[in-house]
Order: sequence, then C-alpha cells, then structure tokens
Amino acid sequence: MAEKTRSTGRRKGGRGKSAGLRVIPLGGLGEVGKNMYVVEYEDDILVIDSGLMFPDQDLPGIDLIVPDISYLEANREKVLGIVLTHGHEDHTGGLSFVLQRLDVPIYGTKLTLGLVGNRLQEDMPFLTPQFREVKAGDVIDIGPFRTRFIAVSHSIPDGVALSIETPLGRIVHTGDFKLDSTPIDGRVTDYGALAGEGDKGVLLLLSDSTNAERNGFTPSERIIGNTLDSLYRNYRSKRLIVSSFASNVHRIQQVADGAARFNRKIAFLGRSMVRNVEIASKLGYLHVDEKMIAPVEDIGKIPPNQLVIMTTGSQGEPFSGLVMMSMGEHKQITLSERDAVFILASVIPGNEKLVNNTINRLFSIGCEVVYEAADKMTHVSGHASAEELKIMLNLVRPQYFVPIHGEQRHLARHAKLAEDVGIPPRNIFIMSNGDVLTFQKGAKPHVRDRVQAGAVLIDGNAVGEIKSRVMKERRDLAEDGIIVVSLALSEDGTLLAPIAIESRGLFAGDDANVFAEVEKAVLKALKDISSPHSRTRSAPRTGRQGKSTPRSQSARSSHAISLDVEAVSRSVKSRVSDVLRRRSSSYAVVLPLISVQGGEPRAASAADFLEREMLA
Amino acid sequence: MAEKTRSTGRRKGGRGKSAGLRVIPLGGLGEVGKNMYVVEYEDDILVIDSGLMFPDQDLPGIDLIVPDISYLEANREKVLGIVLTHGHEDHTGGLSFVLQRLDVPIYGTKLTLGLVGNRLQEDMPFLTPQFREVKAGDVIDIGPFRTRFIAVSHSIPDGVALSIETPLGRIVHTGDFKLDSTPIDGRVTDYGALAGEGDKGVLLLLSDSTNAERNGFTPSERIIGNTLDSLYRNYRSKRLIVSSFASNVHRIQQVADGAARFNRKIAFLGRSMVRNVEIASKLGYLHVDEKMIAPVEDIGKIPPNQLVIMTTGSQGEPFSGLVMMSMGEHKQITLSERDAVFILASVIPGNEKLVNNTINRLFSIGCEVVYEAADKMTHVSGHASAEELKIMLNLVRPQYFVPIHGEQRHLARHAKLAEDVGIPPRNIFIMSNGDVLTFQKGAKPHVRDRVQAGAVLIDGNAVGEIKSRVMKERRDLAEDGIIVVSLALSEDGTLLAPIAIESRGLFAGDDANVFAEVEKAVLKALKDISSPHSRTRSAPRTGRQGKSTPRSQSARSSHAISLDVEAVSRSVKSRVSDVLRRRSSSYAVVLPLISVQGGEPRAASAADFLEREMLA
Repeated sequence: MAEKTRSTGRRKGGRGKSAGLRVIPLGGLGEVGKNMYVVEYEDDILVIDSGLMFPDQDLPGIDLIVPDISYLEANREKVLGIVLTHGHEDHTGGLSFVLQRLDVPIYGTKLTLGLVGNRLQEDMPFLTPQFREVKAGDVIDIGPFRTRFIAVSHSIPDGVALSIETPLGRIVHTGDFKLDSTPIDGRVTDYGALAGEGDKGVLLLLSDSTNAERNGFTPSERIIGNTLDSLYRNYRSKRLIVSSFASNVHRIQQVADGAARFNRKIAFLGRSMVRNVEIASKLGYLHVDEKMIAPVEDIGKIPPNQLVIMTTGSQGEPFSGLVMMSMGEHKQITLSERDAVFILASVIPGNEKLVNNTINRLFSIGCEVVYEAADKMTHVSGHASAEELKIMLNLVRPQYFVPIHGEQRHLARHAKLAEDVGIPPRNIFIMSNGDVLTFQKGAKPHVRDRVQAGAVLIDGNAVGEIKSRVMKERRDLAEDGIIVVSLALSEDGTLLAPIAIESRGLFAGDDANVFAEVEKAVLKALKDISSPHSRTRSAPRTGRQGKSTPRSQSARSSHAISLDVEAVSRSVKSRVSDVLRRRSSSYAVVLPLISVQGGEPRAASAADFLEREMLA
Repeated sequence: MAEKTRSTGRRKGGRGKSAGLRVIPLGGLGEVGKNMYVVEYEDDILVIDSGLMFPDQDLPGIDLIVPDISYLEANREKVLGIVLTHGHEDHTGGLSFVLQRLDVPIYGTKLTLGLVGNRLQEDMPFLTPQFREVKAGDVIDIGPFRTRFIAVSHSIPDGVALSIETPLGRIVHTGDFKLDSTPIDGRVTDYGALAGEGDKGVLLLLSDSTNAERNGFTPSERIIGNTLDSLYRNYRSKRLIVSSFASNVHRIQQVADGAARFNRKIAFLGRSMVRNVEIASKLGYLHVDEKMIAPVEDIGKIPPNQLVIMTTGSQGEPFSGLVMMSMGEHKQITLSERDAVFILASVIPGNEKLVNNTINRLFSIGCEVVYEAADKMTHVSGHASAEELKIMLNLVRPQYFVPIHGEQRHLARHAKLAEDVGIPPRNIFIMSNGDVLTFQKGAKPHVRDRVQAGAVLIDGNAVGEIKSRVMKERRDLAEDGIIVVSLALSEDGTLLAPIAIESRGLFAGDDANVFAEVEKAVLKALKDISSPHSRTRSAPRTGRQGKSTPRSQSARSSHAISLDVEAVSRSVKSRVSDVLRRRSSSYAVVLPLISVQGGEPRAASAADFLEREMLA
C-alpha cells in the first residue's frame, strides 16, 4: 500500500520487501538555509524542521525560497508531524508554505512555538496550526518514532537536539548547536543526555556543519558582555545605538544588562526587534526591568548619554532600523557625530555590500562605528567549530554519520573531522538534497535512491522553480535590456500603421538615431520577407524580387500572399539585433509583436507561445 | 586665461588672484577602484593614475566603470600627462577610455608600462601611446612639477610612490604600498627617500587607506613561500593546481621556486596568467628556468606528481582557468580526487559567491582544496596595515593629510591614525571625488569648491551614467519582468486585429489564464476610453456608455471619435497592472504599444518619448 504512494521515489525494493528506514534531506545540504530532513520508516514519516532561505541577487525579485515538498505531498497520509529544533527562520520560515499544503502537528519548545505562532498569525491568519509544546528532557512517541528532546546551546534560546528511536536504530540530529560552557541562560548543551544516547547506541548522527572550517572552539556568547562593558565605558558621553540579530535573545539580554549597569534606559526599535523582545519577555526568556525600557515617544526626552537604542539592521537590510537611520530617513532617530553605533553581528555571506554601505553612511554622518571588520569580539557564532564538532561525534559515537546544514565545503570538512575521530570513511555519507539513505535489516546502508527535491521560489503570491525560464529571462533583461517592435500588418503584409518601437534598459536607446536605425532595419526585414524565398512556405511564389518599400510591395502582391508571421518575426529579430550589436556589445532581448488584421491572435494565449519560442 | 577653461569648477577666486595649487580626486575616494587624482597648479595639470572599477550586481550588464573625466576634457590644454604608480587595473585600466579623449604622455616604470602597453595594444590597436619610462630614484620635471619616483613594495613589482614638488610645496602620494621587510624581489620600500622628502618638508601626504582597519603589520609576501613549502610537502603525491592573481608576479615566482625545489614542472594556464608571465619574464621581473616550464600540449605526458599548474580564477571569474576546471569544462585539464587545488588569494569583496561556488564544485569533484576560509596563510595583502600607515606618516611628516584609496570607513580610520601620530584634526581632510583642496599663498587651505566627477559605465561600446534611468529600468525588469501588450487600432478606436500579448520574466506568465485575464483587462480599458468622460479631451461626446465589445463599440462611434492614444495607453497600463497585482506581488513593467492606422508613430523616435514617459 505504501508502495503506491511512493511514486516520486525511484526505489528498487520489490513488493513484499520492507522499505526499511529512510533518511532524506529535502533542504539544507549543499546550502545554508531551508533546512528540512525526513525520517521515514515503512508507512510513517517524521519531518525535522521546515526552513526558508533568502535569495541572493542571482534571483531578482524573489522574496524567499523554500524546499520542494512534492515528496511529502505525494506521501501526505504518512506524515505524522514536523519537529522543530529551534526558532530561526532557516528552520521554521517555510512553515507557512508547508502548512497550507500539509496540515500536520508541529512539535517544538515554548520559545520556538511562540515565535512561529506569532509569525504564522501575521502571515496566515486563516490557519490554525496544531502546536504540540515540548521541553528539553521530554520523550514523546510520534508513531513509531520515540523522540527525545535534548537541550543544546545556540544563538537563540530553547534549542534542542533530537534523538529519534526507530525500529532499526537510533538517529541523533544535533539541531544547530555550540558547546557554550557559560551560556547566558545557564542552559548548557546536555552532555549527559547525548552521552547517554551514545551509550545506548546510535545508528546515525546528523550534525551541524556550518562552522566545520573553523578550527578550535567557538567563544562563549558571554564574551560579548565583556565587549559591551568596555564599549559602554569608552563611549560614556555618547548616545548608543546597538544593532544585532533580533532573534539573538541572549545578546539583547546582555545589551540590556549593560544598560542597567551603566544607568542607561533602553529603547527597542525595528519591527522584528520589538516583536521578539515582546515574545521572549512574555515567555520568560528575556528579563528587562520595565522601568528601564524607554517607550519610543520618550526617546527625545532622555539625555543622550543615558540612552541605548537597540535596533535591527545588522545585515544592512533595506528598511531596517539602522539602515533607515544611516540614510537619515528614520522617523524617530536622527544620527550625528554625538552617536556611537555598535554593530554586534558578523556579516552573513551575501550581505557584504549592504552592510558595507550602511557602515560607510554612518561614517559619513560622523558617528563612531564599532563593527566586525575593525573591532574585536563584536560577534561570536552560534555554531560549533571543529573541536566542538569532534566532541559531539565522541559523545554520540554513531555507527554512521551524515554531515548536514552546510555547503559542500562545510560537509567535506565535517566528514574529514569524523574520519579524524575514527568513523570509517565508508560509514560517512555526504548527501545531497533528495538523496535517500536507506537502512534495511541485515543489509549495508546505501544512498542509491532519490526523491524529488529542490527549491521553490516565492515571488509575492506566485510560486516558481529555480531553473525556470523566467529567472533566465529576468537575468537577460537585466543584462541587456529589451527593445520591443510592434507592427500592424494586413494579411498580405501591408504595414497598416507606423512601426511602434520602445526600449527599456538600453543605453543605446538614449540615442534618438538608434530608433531610426531600428525602423530602417524593420523595413528591411519586411522586404526580406517579401522576397520569393521566404514565401515558399505559406504562399505561392510571386516571381521577381521586389525592391519597393513594404507598403508598396505588399500592395503589389496583396492578391496572392498570406503572411508567414513566424518568418516576419524571425527576420525582424535578426535585423534589429544586428543594429544593436553594432551599437553596443549588449544583445538586447528583441520582442516583435505583430498584429495581423483578421489573422489569428499572435500570442494572446501565451503559455503555448512561450513554450514554442525561446529568447534570442 | 586659465579662468576661462576652468568652467566646470565653481571657484570663488576673483580675477587676478592666483588659483594656487589644487588637488582633486576624480576617482578612488569612497570606493576601492578607479583611482585618479589631479594635481593642478595655475595652468598646469598632472594626473596620477587612471584606473577602472568592476561593477557589482547592482549594475547588470555593465562591463566596467571609469572616472568621469569631464573636468580634464574641459581643461585639456592644461594636462601635461598621466603618472602611473603601478600596473594594477584599478590604477591603469581606465587608460583606454582616457587616451581616446586625451592623448597625453604616460609616465611609468618598466613593468607598469609593459603591462599597460600590452593591454592597450589588445584593446586599442589604433592608439600610439606616448610612453615615458622612468625608474625608482628618477626625478623628472613635468612642467612646474618636479616629480620624484620612490620605490615601494606591493603585490605587483615595480610600484612607486611620488613626491611632487610644486611652487607651493611638496605633495607625496604613496601609491599602493606595504612595508615588506623581506620582499621577494629584494626591493624594499625606500625609507631613506621618503624620510628625505620629510626632512625637506612635505605640504601634503596622500596615502593608501585600503587596510586602515587592520591592526598591526601586514605579513611579508615571503610567508606564502613557507605555506607553499608545506603544501608541496603534504600533497607530494597529487597533481597540484595553484590559483592566484595573475598580476602577483612575486607569488608566481614563489610557486615556480617551490616547483623547482620539489622537482615539478610548471604549466601556466589562463589568458592573463600566460600574458603576465610572458611580459614579466621578458622584462626581467620573473625568473623561471625555461626547462621547467611545461607547454600546455605536454601536460598529459607529465606524471601528475611532477606537475604544478598555475592558473587564473582565484576570484571565481567566469571563464577563468580554475572555474572552467571546476565545472569540468576546461579543454586541457580534467580534475579528480587525485588533484589538490590551492587558492592563494583572498576574496575581493563582491566576489564571495563566485569563489564559494567554485570551492563547492571542487569539493564535489573530490579534490583536496586549500583556501583562505579554512587554511592559514594562503594569502597576504599588498596594502599597509595600521602600524605601517603610522610609520609612513612619521617618515613623511606632512603638514596636511588626505587619506585616499578607500571607502568612507577606511578613510575615517586612516584619519584617526593620522590624529594618533599627531597631525591636528583641522589639517586632515576626508575628501570625496570631485572635491577641490585648494592651497593659496598666505591662506589656509580649504575644501570648498567642486568639479564634475563621478562614474562612467561602459557596456560594450555604449557609455552611460550610473544614475541613468537605464540602470533603474534594468533593475526593475529583473525584479518584476515585463508584459507587453500591442494593439492595432483605427483612428476611431476600432481594434483592427487581435490583441497581442507577451511577457518575459513573469512567473504569472507561465499560467495561460493570466493572458486571458490580461486580454479581458485590455478590452475593459478600451471600453473605459470609449466612455463619455474620457473623450471630452479630444473628441465630441457620443452619449450613452456602450456595453458592447470594443470592436462593435468603436464601430458605433467611428464617425466622430479620434483616438486619444495617451489615454488608451494609461488605461491599458492601469488595468493590466491590476491583474498582475492580484496574481503576484510583483508589479511587472507594463508596456502598451499602440499602432494607429494612419496616425503618428507612437514611439518611433524614442528619445523624446522616453523623456516624457516614466516607468509605472
């Protein structure tokens, strides 16, 4: 029965033979983002995380990217639920997409569900998510999967690793973690529980590879407190603006603690900062004395050296608090040389330019600016470095190992680390999204099968594919611009109206002469078409090649010729492209639109047209 | 007389008063790239460097960026020549643009002119540049400017600083430099000469700010030799592929020296690598035994562990050697797990993703990969860090200081360093491109005037401006896509042919229904137009609003109405935008093209049309 629904897999296992235990990453391998891992045993599926990824500039206009969940949709009756490891968007941000398609229970800790619930409420008020709150230490049976939640420290509170007992063995998934010995909330990664699982025997470890390239240990989040202390001291006379990740509740706590020690009030600005502070405070993860908090409307009344403003924008995000301030466009805050700005975050790859521009603008204003490139210990990572990863491997002592959560380079390094601690290379699998790692009783595990996996692009309400023609078209449009030529022709090829030409994104289009040249080229193209050769396809030959203009020429032949629209289109494209190529090396997209009086619509039902016609 | 030509400046100096000495950055401030600095005394101008900058993804389709030289063109008879500090593209790559507009002598050292001459020969074979070769230690009179060339070490050989004696005082320009105590070519930065200028008295120092954010000292290039030694040792059994900057002759020398020590032949691949090795060898800056060099065609015959391949692509440049290899598309080299790849370069900001993708592909192939993020000392910078910058300031001891060659953040940090060594803040000027720093006898220097400055974008043969409508259009096209609607209407508004619709870069365009909706919207728009209100402008009223289709409707009113093309266009745009907005949040660019039989061309001479009409 299960076999029927597993249509998107290409399994070789025959009827009657057990499908066994399958582990399938649907997102998170070969990338940092959109984490989603499937654990499948016979007729049951448990999903771990449901994240999103933000697009880079190669995907213009795209808002966000989520995993392709075709496999889950094709096996919807098997899916028991989604377990969340922590509240970061790359682990939870795909839920609004997924829950519209699969309404299943969601398991997570209090803060994780608090953040997710708030977000879903905003995005999808019509959904009623089935939340199942758990806490570290809990053991929950989800179908055949006995799932233990184990505390891990990370850059957001309340993160967990998972130990999932299956009929074929135990799978440990670390979640995102570091081994912070002095975490701000005192919640140390639970070595005992992890070692306990190791003692019982772990079949497979899936572990966070983000920082596999970094040697040594990731410093404790507490280090930032020391940095803050000296910053508060050094910039005593300034108004302070601190920017960090809105989800890093530990860091917000430390900024607030410093404010208290140095007798400053704290104001929170920026939508996600305000929201997260509210949720984390309400749920007991953030402790800031109410009397210390300055409401936005009071900011002006507080002496600058008694105020710290905590805001968003550490990644240079457009419209974030710090970015609006740096552009002089923030409603409440106007920066000057009396301000000191601390950016307590590292630049996420891809955001370099946005952050850079923000810092440069702050310097132009005359602010003091403290930031990663020039100052020490303005950020520590939330992910384990090489030494910690080896400790995790030694705690869990798995039989098999799959590095997850990282690009190819991170996975490769993590695999090396696993070899270093003694896992045989043949027991380490570097997988890709969609690969199926299969365990069957009495057989060696293997990665032979694949299921459909990939990226779904979200552009407003529209959903598309990463390899679609549309994304290539957008890039071509951006590189080259477009020129559009519209012709109204009679069925016999007579130009019924002046040629209409427009361009967008074309440097040459600034030049009035270009359009005259294009017009000439179009007329030449029409003449080509009227020559005997081009007519053989759809019309009887009219004999001699005419040298007259299209209009007079078509008048001459109007009794006999019916128009070959394809040929006209091709010829116009080619002639216009020649003109543009002489003008500049850019090959603008040329789009001829031809209306034929009384003829068929040229492209009114577009889908088939677009199938047929590729870009020049 | 000089006053007349100085039209692009807004000087207040009255007639008869000396214009004095003016220093004007035309490129290189607030950015890393397109360096160009002007030193002007009365009727004479000396230009320092003439660089280019490579565009980032905000400028799609742009090949390169050079400074706006309107000021030099407006003062062409004053320009005595261009002095080059070294052969990097950000100091010399703008010459082919500049020399087409200003044919002036170019002063530079042997290697600098060798590299420039080769490039100009390729790009502009019709030019005959007037080269004036100089060497470190030379003192040349260029008009009123007695110019001394002073050896500095950098990541390309034969770099110089300049000390320019002017009637109002001495200006020292450091060029790009570091204080490498053990440079590969033994050519240490000439402390004696710099200190000598300091002793004589320096009015103004212009100094390289690139690494002002880095504390301490930049390590010597020689460190890379140690790294290479251990890499050659550790990967003894592998074929080695080394990628670095093609202009870093020192590093190429060290790779070749290592190859000799470890009994490997060396092959050079990649156009710029081959060219630079050839030029540097011919001119005596690179010393590789001919017998050690493996011609490309022999690569296959050499045992892998006796070969090192030195190639381009350290920045992930498309079509470079390493990138083609990583994609399995290199003609001569196929990589496998028997290869080790060393990327001996740091990632230039903006190239992160390209480099990242290359490394990930190499890991996928199974190569060993050594690179900056995971390995130590794979690169050292060619620019001085904070301690070196302070030494330079103390050697030259200038009266006034202008940090150059850097973004705002670098300039601000460098200014702080100058304060630290005792330069009074009022004697430090943080300038922008186009600012004029004026020195006049008996007056305080000031930055009050400005000349035209900025960026010229080069797209093939076309030249454009950075703030042009064209760049905004390209970004809009990329974000949203475009939908084009073409209507053939008679003068009375009759649809003469079916509506033609096409889209590019539109996710919704995949959906056949959208085009039907758009068609409906267009018909509605035509109906709007036929309603009494919209006609008052250009036509007599026809009475009741019709409910018929456009075709029948316009037939009804054909005797009286002449078409308001503007209104039709506006209405179609608005109706179609509504459809798209409902479909997705992207607001595609809507471009209605309307041909009116017997009417005026709608957009055939585009320039004025484009002036008139802005994007939706």
